[in-house]
Amino acid sequence: MAKAEKSVKTAGKAANVKPVQEQPVLHAIKGGKSAPKNGAAKTAAPAKPAQSKTAMIKALANKPAPAAADDAPVIALDLGPAKLSPAMTAYFKKCQDKLGFVPNVLVAYAFDSTKLEVFAAFYNDLMLGESGLSKLEREMIAVAVSSQNRCYYCLTAHGAAVRQYSGNPLLGEQLVMNYRAARLSKRQRAMLDFAVKLTASPGSVEEGDRERLRRAGFTDRDIWDISAVVGFFNMSNRVASATDMRPNTAYHGQVR
Amino acid sequence: MAKAEKSVKTAGKAANVKPVQEQPVLHAIKGGKSAPKNGAAKTAAPAKPAQSKTAMIKALANKPAPAAADDAPVIALDLGPAKLSPAMTAYFKKCQDKLGFVPNVLVAYAFDSTKLEVFAAFYNDLMLGESGLSKLEREMIAVAVSSQNRCYYCLTAHGAAVRQYSGNPLLGEQLVMNYRAARLSKRQRAMLDFAVKLTASPGSVEEGDRERLRRAGFTDRDIWDISAVVGFFNMSNRVASATDMRPNTAYHGQVR
Amino acid sequence: MAKAEKSVKTAGKAANVKPVQEQPVLHAIKGGKSAPKNGAAKTAAPAKPAQSKTAMIKALANKPAPAAADDAPVIALDLGPAKLSPAMTAYFKKCQDKLGFVPNVLVAYAFDSTKLEVFAAFYNDLMLGESGLSKLEREMIAVAVSSQNRCYYCLTAHGAAVRQYSGNPLLGEQLVMNYRAARLSKRQRAMLDFAVKLTASPGSVEEGDRERLRRAGFTDRDIWDISAVVGFFNMSNRVASATDMRPNTAYHGQVR
Amino acid sequence: MAKAEKSVKTAGKAANVKPVQEQPVLHAIKGGKSAPKNGAAKTAAPAKPAQSKTAMIKALANKPAPAAADDAPVIALDLGPAKLSPAMTAYFKKCQDKLGFVPNVLVAYAFDSTKLEVFAAFYNDLMLGESGLSKLEREMIAVAVSSQNRCYYCLTAHGAAVRQYSGNPLLGEQLVMNYRAARLSKRQRAMLDFAVKLTASPGSVEEGDRERLRRAGFTDRDIWDISAVVGFFNMSNRVASATDMRPNTAYHGQVR
Amino acid sequence: MAKAEKSVKTAGKAANVKPVQEQPVLHAIKGGKSAPKNGAAKTAAPAKPAQSKTAMIKALANKPAPAAADDAPVIALDLGPAKLSPAMTAYFKKCQDKLGFVPNVLVAYAFDSTKLEVFAAFYNDLMLGESGLSKLEREMIAVAVSSQNRCYYCLTAHGAAVRQYSGNPLLGEQLVMNYRAARLSKRQRAMLDFAVKLTASPGSVEEGDRERLRRAGFTDRDIWDISAVVGFFNMSNRVASATDMRPNTAYHGQVR
Amino acid sequence: MAKAEKSVKTAGKAANVKPVQEQPVLHAIKGGKSAPKNGAAKTAAPAKPAQSKTAMIKALANKPAPAAADDAPVIALDLGPAKLSPAMTAYFKKCQDKLGFVPNVLVAYAFDSTKLEVFAAFYNDLMLGESGLSKLEREMIAVAVSSQNRCYYCLTAHGAAVRQYSGNPLLGEQLVMNYRAARLSKRQRAMLDFAVKLTASPGSVEEGDRERLRRAGFTDRDIWDISAVVGFFNMSNRVASATDMRPNTAYHGQVR
Repeated sequence: MAKAEKSVKTAGKAANVKPVQEQPVLHAIKGGKSAPKNGAAKTAAPAKPAQSKTAMIKALANKPAPAAADDAPVIALDLGPAKLSPAMTAYFKKCQDKLGFVPNVLVAYAFDSTKLEVFAAFYNDLMLGESGLSKLEREMIAVAVSSQNRCYYCLTAHGAAVRQYSGNPLLGEQLVMNYRAARLSKRQRAMLDFAVKLTASPGSVEEGDRERLRRAGFTDRDIWDISAVVGFFNMSNRVASATDMRPNTAYHGQVR
Repeated sequence: MAKAEKSVKTAGKAANVKPVQEQPVLHAIKGGKSAPKNGAAKTAAPAKPAQSKTAMIKALANKPAPAAADDAPVIALDLGPAKLSPAMTAYFKKCQDKLGFVPNVLVAYAFDSTKLEVFAAFYNDLMLGESGLSKLEREMIAVAVSSQNRCYYCLTAHGAAVRQYSGNPLLGEQLVMNYRAARLSKRQRAMLDFAVKLTASPGSVEEGDRERLRRAGFTDRDIWDISAVVGFFNMSNRVASATDMRPNTAYHGQVR
Repeated sequence: MAKAEKSVKTAGKAANVKPVQEQPVLHAIKGGKSAPKNGAAKTAAPAKPAQSKTAMIKALANKPAPAAADDAPVIALDLGPAKLSPAMTAYFKKCQDKLGFVPNVLVAYAFDSTKLEVFAAFYNDLMLGESGLSKLEREMIAVAVSSQNRCYYCLTAHGAAVRQYSGNPLLGEQLVMNYRAARLSKRQRAMLDFAVKLTASPGSVEEGDRERLRRAGFTDRDIWDISAVVGFFNMSNRVASATDMRPNTAYHGQVR
Repeated sequence: MAKAEKSVKTAGKAANVKPVQEQPVLHAIKGGKSAPKNGAAKTAAPAKPAQSKTAMIKALANKPAPAAADDAPVIALDLGPAKLSPAMTAYFKKCQDKLGFVPNVLVAYAFDSTKLEVFAAFYNDLMLGESGLSKLEREMIAVAVSSQNRCYYCLTAHGAAVRQYSGNPLLGEQLVMNYRAARLSKRQRAMLDFAVKLTASPGSVEEGDRERLRRAGFTDRDIWDISAVVGFFNMSNRVASATDMRPNTAYHGQVR
Repeated sequence: MAKAEKSVKTAGKAANVKPVQEQPVLHAIKGGKSAPKNGAAKTAAPAKPAQSKTAMIKALANKPAPAAADDAPVIALDLGPAKLSPAMTAYFKKCQDKLGFVPNVLVAYAFDSTKLEVFAAFYNDLMLGESGLSKLEREMIAVAVSSQNRCYYCLTAHGAAVRQYSGNPLLGEQLVMNYRAARLSKRQRAMLDFAVKLTASPGSVEEGDRERLRRAGFTDRDIWDISAVVGFFNMSNRVASATDMRPNTAYHGQVR
Repeated sequence: MAKAEKSVKTAGKAANVKPVQEQPVLHAIKGGKSAPKNGAAKTAAPAKPAQSKTAMIKALANKPAPAAADDAPVIALDLGPAKLSPAMTAYFKKCQDKLGFVPNVLVAYAFDSTKLEVFAAFYNDLMLGESGLSKLEREMIAVAVSSQNRCYYCLTAHGAAVRQYSGNPLLGEQLVMNYRAARLSKRQRAMLDFAVKLTASPGSVEEGDRERLRRAGFTDRDIWDISAVVGFFNMSNRVASATDMRPNTAYHGQVR
């Protein structure tokens, strides 16, 4: 393992995975609020320094709110936790510090440090990197796609993100329930129409669909980004559904 | 850009992304055959050293077979090509040497070197890394999923991969057309039933579905891997469909 | 209240509508809390006595929370408000007193006092009358059906009711998103499986489906009640969707 | 029960529910013909005065035509018949006198006098009350919705109603089989297109759909009424399918 | 005319098309009743000898019942009528004599005498030739398939055939509306379950489906025949829908 | 049987069914090449003269390619082979001579000489007779329909036919995978859009759909022919799927 740790030390320098110290955490809470206010999350106090990495992973799964205890493990598969690379150990610590918990999707991938790392690299570039789409817009796509696929994990985590980024609790709910009920700009409506069509019947997307996005003001690069986010959540929804991934309970009470 | 190039130079040292010199190419041709035999691909002779990276990307898109010229660009979005990182430049060269062409999905991602790198890292770990699933089985999932989603790009590229890995041209065809027509072992049938259900209605997958896989001999880790491959192609199918990605014509004639 | 009772006394002459003094309000808030605690609803202070019935209807539509203003009228149809019958006037007052607002579905039906009255009578008998199903179970059906139909109004109002009756915020969310993600007893799972099948493909329900409910412990009368609740929300979902009915914003913050 | 009966006695005075003696029966036969002419119904002679209400309910279920005996009970649930309120007793007698039988949907609800009463009140206001839609149009919607949902009970009973109101046996058949095969006015076609869309995918109905109705000449109140009828039969279809409700055989031969 | 008749004279000798004098007419009326009894059809008196074939074709399209006039031509395509071969002329005459009209599907195919002849040969072998399936069973399949496909022409013509062969008007209606509502033997239910599955999702039919038929008592030859009838009506339904084929109005009133 | 054979001898004289000696074989190989070039088919050398007709049928099923042996019988039903009529015997011989094998669909129908004969007559008139549609266009429809229905047999056999008639291997692949990926003329795109809609939801085809074909340049007779081909393959797909019909392996390698 020493060798693995060593190889990770230089990982921060790799161009293709942003150095951890610069990596934004998933769904950073708007306005720097590091701890959600309402009941459920209040109990999710930062765990004490864990003795071992294995213990840490368990500790990082935040505790359910008293009234809503949900004793399910993070996923329904029995996968022994891996020894995290230093980069990923640091990443988890950063999540804990900023969010008060490590998102369960990361805990789920932590059975294999490489898989965790490429997943995090992919995710962070996609959702937090430069794009003509705002972070809110990317989260809106995430929720609209996840609603189409009825993914409990992603609707919970990214529904909270939409509420946070928009400061509009109703918008988050509407995208979870039926994006057509939301009062959207023409741009955002075109974006979500494309996202839902691409999710529901990918084989029927054609030039006319791209043209509608261009007419709504999107560049070709924006169309790539929309498609990439749609694609990503069609992946994540399925990994989450296939493994019965359970969201951190803290999400439920955020920004209501 | 200089900074990006520098940061990429050390990329090979990152533990979490296999060094490029060790990275297998996509669907390496079985038995080390570096050039497909049949007509279409014969014409795709290695391009001469390209003057610039931009030129190289164009050169790498292999030439269509005479009888089946398909003048479409690789994707229907106009994205300027990026300067590839040295790692990715090396990776493209390796593809060219081993396959005779660079798979168009890589050419498509090459508008952004970081996106290309995280995509390739994700792909290579998933499809070529260690797993209880054989590489053929992972390709079988790729094709069954892509058939459900009617993805022209992925059916072409991964249909060829199934033909190559299995040495059975009929199997490739059957998975493209209707996996139920293939004569599969119980294990592989259970695997593809799960893959297609997870693709078609992810929200309805439950413990009973995982149990069926366990009864067919799969471990929990295998179930993760099946789910991850299903998820990945549900992503790739959508990026390909959204962008009208065109497969290299060489695939069509391989292993018929 | 005396006045309300008096005005109701004459209402009691209608055989088919329970006298108002016995009529429970829709989703009475558990434990007698008459005002929701969180921000959005706080602003929904009881309106002053309205000069006219027309004014009252407008006043009763509770005000949106500042951060989530949603200026849509209650429905997207322009229907002049009717003169409410004394019974319905009293009913609205009772809602206002107990809930802090009149549910928008009632405001919507108030364009015609007869329609409002038969709707309220139907609803109250169904959801609050005697049954082998608990009120929570009836609300769970309401949400599972409304999720299948993607009805924003009903998911919001009855999602809140599930959270209230169960005291379990997660349960409400899970039924909104995907009832299969909830940890349900066999009885409740059988109930919701039947509800969703009857919603999605009514023409395929047969004796085997009723038998499954009987095996889960339901009587034939319970099966009627389940079917009647499923039917009712398949009606309400469609009236709400057809008219773009908007839920009272107070619901969103309740029992999170 | 005495109390309930008493409260019913005065029911006729309530403005909001039409007095029973004025309540039209379901699908009153056009032109005052109180007995259908063709074979099947001829045999459904009025039952003798029943000794008890329980007996009466059984007697009211009309006898099947000889060639088409269908020994199924009215519904597949074993629900003991209730003592009917005087209002409902009178209502059943009126059905018997005018139609020659009591529609089985009413017999089905007769296990609970209150449920029967609110159902009848709801139904009569909706289908026979004032509206910009003719009674035929409301029945046309009933059949188009029931065809979408493949509801044997409602297609039979309301198919007969369309044949009666229109005097056009083909129209009834066409709406049962495929409303697109009927030669409809633009108004009626728009009405049924809306009805079928609202039935098949309620969550996708939006302002554009309402606009199409307005352009076809419907007022906002008409749109409410269309939606309410669509909603009602989406309810009735499901109650009928869930309980295997069997139509009176007399319907089959009417107005062929 | 003489020439055409002559070329047709030898047609009867062709082995692959049964000699006309032995060809049964479509849906021959049970018990040799050559004229339906009820009103609509009464008016469809045999046309007088037509002067020309063109006139004859028009004359053969039976007249609509007074109350249900439907002025549509037989199909919505403008195809000049062909000169019928003597065999087909004789066949049409036989239909007229036995049924009182020529089924409109034959009138539709009469734009091309060869197409008419191969269609009639195919149809007659399939529906009236030797088989382990009774003629009623073949018609039941026709209706169940046509209901799935919502084909107005076939539901009308073959719904009448089911009523005739079974002498059970309800059975015809039930198969039109929802075959699950019919009280069927296990054999016939298995047959229609297979027919509807093969219609709705042919690509998912597998050995298990054939096994279910075998367990219900069907031989392999019977399974072929079921499949062939299902296939045939999936063809006819589409030709009829694509051309807006209108059924003879006489069917509507038969055996009600 | 003697009589049947005799009646067949004169079949050639019947105007309405092309004489066998003039009947084109299914998918005649373009340019008179009677033997496919690539490996799989090379092994399918013409069988020696069979001793008996039964033996001949077996012999005609061409041998699988070594690498892709597929030991399944032609269909999954056990139907004894019939004595073929002289006409059909000649027809099979002609297939063998021209194609190098008898298409398995004909082998499948050979359990009953009459069924084989009417099937072949129907097929040959439809696919090889005079029409405003080219033979390639008819094959394109066959493949697009078979793709919608996921029919392994027809996709294989008619996919090969599209490759042969068009000389474009990619076109065949694209129609198998997703016809929207093919670069089609407006005419052919309109044709396939109609074909796929008529396949997927026949009950929703209306005048507007026919109008679109007319605007794309099709005559009413062309529309009949398109509909007839769509109908035919909706039949064949279901017979093939219901019986697990296996295509001759020679098709797989043709014109790649």
